[in-house]
Amino acid sequence: MKIITVSREFGSGGREIGKRLADELGVAYYDREILSAVAEKSSLDEKYIEHTLEKGLFANYPLRFSRSFATVPMSETANILAKQHKVLKEIAQKGDCVIVGRGADVILKNYNPFNLFVYADMSSKIKRCRIRECAGQNLSDREYEKKIKQIDKSRKDIHGIISPNTWGDKSFYNLCINTTDMEIKDLIPSVAAYAKAWFERSTK
Amino acid sequence: MKIITVSREFGSGGREIGKRLADELGVAYYDREILSAVAEKSSLDEKYIEHTLEKGLFANYPLRFSRSFATVPMSETANILAKQHKVLKEIAQKGDCVIVGRGADVILKNYNPFNLFVYADMSSKIKRCRIRECAGQNLSDREYEKKIKQIDKSRKDIHGIISPNTWGDKSFYNLCINTTDMEIKDLIPSVAAYAKAWFERSTK
Repeated sequence: MKIITVSREFGSGGREIGKRLADELGVAYYDREILSAVAEKSSLDEKYIEHTLEKGLFANYPLRFSRSFATVPMSETANILAKQHKVLKEIAQKGDCVIVGRGADVILKNYNPFNLFVYADMSSKIKRCRIRECAGQNLSDREYEKKIKQIDKSRKDIHGIISPNTWGDKSFYNLCINTTDMEIKDLIPSVAAYAKAWFERSTK
Repeated sequence: MKIITVSREFGSGGREIGKRLADELGVAYYDREILSAVAEKSSLDEKYIEHTLEKGLFANYPLRFSRSFATVPMSETANILAKQHKVLKEIAQKGDCVIVGRGADVILKNYNPFNLFVYADMSSKIKRCRIRECAGQNLSDREYEKKIKQIDKSRKDIHGIISPNTWGDKSFYNLCINTTDMEIKDLIPSVAAYAKAWFERSTK
């Protein structure tokens, strides 16, 4: 089974790398599908789940949820993570794929995945956010920077719940890509070739 | 000018990556040549220079140098670094090349180099050291680990003299390669392709 996991700083283009890599390699791609599956399994709202796993992302989320957002109990987070764990294992068993985020690098460790980490400098991430309106808002550079740091902090914290490995520490990934000033599509052929070489080696 | 710098943990195969990348791309390769040029410019012994820049590497170096080794004055280190700085700039002006170590990533920053960092887990580095007898000695795993950590500590310290950027911090490199369990030669075509894509972008 060839599984590629993509961990990424918010705004670094990691999701685009994951999607394009999957297309290039002709394998399945999973990102939001995982949230939907967790939502289905847990009868919870998909956006609520996303918020729980990336606190602070939806500051402008409808009021009816806003109170609970401030106080998502740890047991609920644990429950969501357990469901997500199950969904990830089901996905892995289906066949070769690229999975973006969700701690798949740690949860699917026994499948010996190729683990990518994607990052960039702050100005490049802000630029990418602005172009894609990642946060769905028109923010100043300072506000974007705050949001990016906040989301990455949440990713790191959530990762800390499921693993002692520090999120973003290069020693836990096979390849770390700095996308500063880069067009993602230009990087895909070489990253795909690298992943192939890595899998060939790991199955020798 | 296309300059690739390779920073690396001791035993990670960084030097081999540098050499093979230079061959693949048909450009010049610099590593020990830099030490020789610094030795020539400073009328100091090449091994003494190497020791000064990587303290602890030559614990078994002939006694006649051993006393001075313990007490290399900071002014001498600064002098050697200044000479090395000059040598690196001369090399950069000659044309496209791959340079391994020597803080070239920082010193040649104005040339907008492609900066690689090569690393691996400890057992993989010990294995590589053992095969290549990097330290020229028959050491136990524990002794190798101590030596590897010592040399990397020196690299980090020396890097700290010339730059505020932390040695090995992924944010200061364009691509970070984990060579754990990998054959270096299998990685070269894709890393060369990645570097080419990076240079194409950076000259757009």
